[in-house]
Parts: sequence; structure tokens; C-alpha cells
Amino acid sequence: MTDALKPGATIGILGGGQLGRMLSVAASRLGFKTHIFDPGANPPAGQVADQVTTAGYEDSAALLAFANAVDVVTYEFENIPTAALDIIESHGPIRPSREALRISQDRLTEKTFLQSLDLHIAPFADITDAASLEAALAEIGTPAILKTRRFGYDGKGQARIMSPDQADEALNAMAGAPSVLEGFVNFSHEVSVIAARGITGEVACYDPGENVHRDGILHTTTVPARLSASQRMDAVLLAAKVLNALDYVGVLGVELFVTPQGLVVNEIAPRVHNSGHWTQNGCAVDQFEQHIRAVAGWPLGDGQRHSDVVMENLIGDDMDRLPELAKERDCALHLYGKAEAKPGRKMAHVNRITRPQK
Amino acid sequence: MTDALKPGATIGILGGGQLGRMLSVAASRLGFKTHIFDPGANPPAGQVADQVTTAGYEDSAALLAFANAVDVVTYEFENIPTAALDIIESHGPIRPSREALRISQDRLTEKTFLQSLDLHIAPFADITDAASLEAALAEIGTPAILKTRRFGYDGKGQARIMSPDQADEALNAMAGAPSVLEGFVNFSHEVSVIAARGITGEVACYDPGENVHRDGILHTTTVPARLSASQRMDAVLLAAKVLNALDYVGVLGVELFVTPQGLVVNEIAPRVHNSGHWTQNGCAVDQFEQHIRAVAGWPLGDGQRHSDVVMENLIGDDMDRLPELAKERDCALHLYGKAEAKPGRKMAHVNRITRPQK
Repeated sequence: MTDALKPGATIGILGGGQLGRMLSVAASRLGFKTHIFDPGANPPAGQVADQVTTAGYEDSAALLAFANAVDVVTYEFENIPTAALDIIESHGPIRPSREALRISQDRLTEKTFLQSLDLHIAPFADITDAASLEAALAEIGTPAILKTRRFGYDGKGQARIMSPDQADEALNAMAGAPSVLEGFVNFSHEVSVIAARGITGEVACYDPGENVHRDGILHTTTVPARLSASQRMDAVLLAAKVLNALDYVGVLGVELFVTPQGLVVNEIAPRVHNSGHWTQNGCAVDQFEQHIRAVAGWPLGDGQRHSDVVMENLIGDDMDRLPELAKERDCALHLYGKAEAKPGRKMAHVNRITRPQK
Repeated sequence: MTDALKPGATIGILGGGQLGRMLSVAASRLGFKTHIFDPGANPPAGQVADQVTTAGYEDSAALLAFANAVDVVTYEFENIPTAALDIIESHGPIRPSREALRISQDRLTEKTFLQSLDLHIAPFADITDAASLEAALAEIGTPAILKTRRFGYDGKGQARIMSPDQADEALNAMAGAPSVLEGFVNFSHEVSVIAARGITGEVACYDPGENVHRDGILHTTTVPARLSASQRMDAVLLAAKVLNALDYVGVLGVELFVTPQGLVVNEIAPRVHNSGHWTQNGCAVDQFEQHIRAVAGWPLGDGQRHSDVVMENLIGDDMDRLPELAKERDCALHLYGKAEAKPGRKMAHVNRITRPQK
């Protein structure tokens, strides 16, 4: 821990949503202060952070002041404007690195990167116009999914193509944005691996969780996932491959499709991940603390799980169930401090401890 | 939860030390904001709270503004001046109630109260001068301990009397403060029960922890404690008796001596307690969240333990061990954000998860 940040140091976090909030709380457990940078007023993370800067990512003066006030900068989301990162990086380290952001900000770049590591991914093609889409559909076949290269999350910016005659409609849905066509993967279920790499190159993985989505948004993550021992090993090895290739520092989420032919990488997220929230009640060191440990140059937790957990997201008016959930035994509540419960808005999650493990 | 505070409400906390800090973090998990009132600049809890008021307990205007800004007031320590409580209570509820504070602020009042509940306590006597001390020593015998009635903690304000000729020296050590003489209890070990009572009268207890002190300060708490099934039951019943007698709302710590004749109550603390820190890594709902649930009018967690835990306090330069502790498996770190590690100062604790339970 010679180069490690000492307790009392300040960790800057770009983005003050629920991930920034839970990173902030984890940082406090290690004696760090946090400083949140967010364009929106009263971000959820601001309620538990030492300092908050409310400014846009185009506000150079605010970015400079922020970068000067903190000892390291990390982030809770990947779509940070490049110019903002340039300003921050001229004043101190950004962890995980720019390279991880560059790759994960663009689906085409990400897929090309994953392919270069010999990982299994769905067939894909760069789509720039109707002609390239037609050619790609001929090659990849249907069903397929057209996705914008950038700024997609929670099922947004996607259009499913069940037959070639739906190509035009799908392309229109992209509104002229550069896109990528993905072949359909015939998977039995989806799992994700939350993996971390420390500043000295050590790697630690949590047990894979099994994800169920509803309306394109993560609904539950169940640990342990249905995986064979060899699949479990594959998941860890491929996550480590990604981390090492990026010389990564921090927590990374890897979404995987489970198929009869093996694991297929869906996407990676260079940050703490919704499917890793279960670690808060399943491990001594959760994904948020793991991320803070990594970016602060501390030793990582080993990912050891003390309990089986089922995480469930509370979206929009799921919050009406709060009085009942608060009465449930072995059910840990995690609310995000958001003022208004809009449809589709992640408001909270619960971690149900289902069985201790060792 | 009809009268319960809704997420988004603000919980006022008197005192911004480590207990206020961990209460604040727990409150955030339930979607509450916190507002810390503390006379000292930069209190540890301020780093994770939404608002901080830095003012003394004699500052009526600050107390009024604080009381008006929050939905309920709780506290992390018992020695709050009565005048300050009067001001706050004229503007909103204080939980736990004034009565719990009144009793626990004065050892003599507390002992009289515990005796009135037919609980076993050490023999004691009110000491006002040398004559009353001489009479009490004749009655109670030696060894005995002379303690100030008020403001004692972590072994401060105490003098041991091994033989009657040490009476004068002990009395001088009290510096004229009203005192109480306690007979010596021949106990094998000390345990404590962290118990909670909700706004509707429901009671929940955590499993008793076994405490080891060093230099008058708690060193470790181990769960489970060495207790027979009937002792375990006694501990829970007596804690419930205290809670019900006080019409208590919140978490209460009860320290108990284990003797061949049964459990003897040492003292009670009307707040979250150092010996309950293990619950952070042993239970879905820890003592801090339990306290917040109670004062917010929410249902209580049931106290179910998912893992065995050994809590160890890090005092003063114990912090030098941090690099090694950070590498330990299944060892959860909890730092308090204090700038300076003075001798005898509680800086942090670790919870070692030793074995899952169900």
C-alpha cells in the first residue's frame, strides 16, 4: 500500500446517481471523503458525499476546480464527454483508464476489442445506411438486433428485426445514429461476472450472478447462477482476460449469455454494475468498496461470498411495496434517495439473503 | 407504517462522531437524509450527512433551526444538556424519549430504575461525602468501585477501592462530583445485548455478544457469546423488560456480567452501542438501521444473524495495522474518518466474518 491513498484522501466521482451514492458510502467505510460532480441539482449521491459540484461536463472551470480538489477521479457511467476527461486527466489520474471508457462508449469498438481477445460474441456488423444493413442481414440472418453504437442503456436505442422487411423501420428508429447489427444468440439464461483488478495487477472476481430482465431493465440477480464448474471457470478467465488487456484498475461488469456452445459475451461495463448489488449483503467487501479499493491503490477483497443472495430492483411504483418489504425477514433495503418514482426509474433494490455459504 | 416517516424525510442526529456517522449511512439506505448537530468542526458524521450544523448545545437559535429542519431527532450519546432537549422537544419528537436519557445520564437513577424492575445489579450506594463512603464500604465491602454519577464513559471517572484505606484517595479522584459506590461482581465474562423497540411496541434483540476490554475500552465483541440457552433467554427477557418499562423507541445496549448466579446488569446505554457493531456484517438489518427504523416508525428487522462475527476496535495507533488488515480475507473495515489517531481514540473497527449461520 505504498502508493495507496491514505484515509482522509478525497475520491472524486463523476456522476451522482445511485452508483455514485453507493460508491460514496463504501468510500466512507475506508475513511475516504468523496466529491461528486453531477450536472443535476441534488443528485442522490450528494446526500452522502462530503462535497458536491453541480455543473455541466462542458464547464471547464468547474471541472478544473473539481480535479484540483480530489486525489483520484472515478466515474459511475461510461458516457462522459472526451473533452471533460481531457481536462481532468491533466490534473490527476482517472481510474479506470480512458482506454476502458473509449472502448465501452462505442458498441462497435467494444465488439472489435472483444473479438481481438478471441472471446465468443454474437456476429455483428457496422451499419451506416440501408445498404450496409441489407448486406449485414443477408450475412447474419434474422432475428437480429440493431443498436446505436453509443449512448444505449437499459434497452434504449435498440430495435429488434424479426425479418428483413423490418429493416427500414429499425433503421429509422436509430434516427441516423451510427449503429451496429447483432445476430441473435440462442441462450438459455444470462449471467454476469463482476470482476476487479487492482493497481498492482491482482484480479478478483465475485461469483457469477444470474440475471432476469423485465422490459429491458434488470429485474433480479440470483447468486449462485446456474452454471457448471467449467462455465464458472470460463467466466472468471474471460473477465480476467478483459481486465488484463485493458490494464484495468477498478470494477468491471461482464454480461454473458449461457449457450449450449459455451459463454458468449454480451457487453462490458467499465464500472460497478447493477448485477453486482447483491455483494452488499453477500460479501465482506462489496463491489462498491472493491472499486474504491482498486482506484485508491488498496488491496482487493477476494470476492468470497458468505451468503446466497437474490437481488431485486425496485422500479417506479414498485416503491409502493416498501411497507411490506420492510417487514420481510433477511431482506436488506437499499433506497437511492430519489425524490420522484417515475415509471422505469430505478428507485431502490432489495437483497434477500437466502442461504449462508462457506 | 401509517405514521412512519417517508423516504426523503430528514433525521436529525445530535452528535457527529462515529455512531452518528454510521447512523447516517444506515439512514441513507432507507432513503432518509440526515442532519448532524455537533459543536466540533468537521465531525466524522458530517462527511456522509446531507446537512451539518456546527454549534454548541447552548446555542438556542441553532437548536431551533435544527429542530425545524428535521422530521425527528435522535442522538448518538446520552449526555445532552437538558435545556437543549427542551428546545428541540418543543418542535418535534426526540427518540428515544427524554425519560431514557434522564435515567441513563445518572448512574444512581439508572441503578434505582433497574432495581425497581427486579433486575440483578451489583450492590450500590449513593456517595455524597467521606462519611457516606465509609458507611457504604462497611455495608458493601471491598473490592468496590467508586464512579461519578454523571459523564463517565470508557472507564473515565472511576476509581477502584481494594481496601477501606483507599477510600479517601478514591473520593478525591471524583473531584467533588456526586458519586455512587458499586460492589464488585465476581463474573466470568461480560456480554451485551443490543435490543430495539419499535413505535408500536414490538421488540427485537440481536444475539448477545461477548465483550473483552483493554484499558477500560472495548477491545473485541465475539458473536455468539458463551452463554447457555437459558442465559440467552434471560438476556433477551431482561432487555425487553427495560425497553417496555421505558416505553422505549430505538436501540438500547445492555451490558451484562455473567456469574454463576445468573446475569447481572452492569449498565444500559440508550443508543446504538460499540458492542453492536458486529451486526453490520452479521445481519441483514444492522443496529444502526434498526435504530433508524425505530425512530422513523418503520417495522424492525428481527435481529436474525446470518454469520458469526468477531468485532475488533482499532484504537489510536492500531491504525498502523491497516495495510495488513486490508489484505485479510472476510475482514470488513469500518473507518470513522477521524483526522488524527490519538492514543485511546476509537478510529475504526473491523468485523471478521468467522462462520455463516442459519
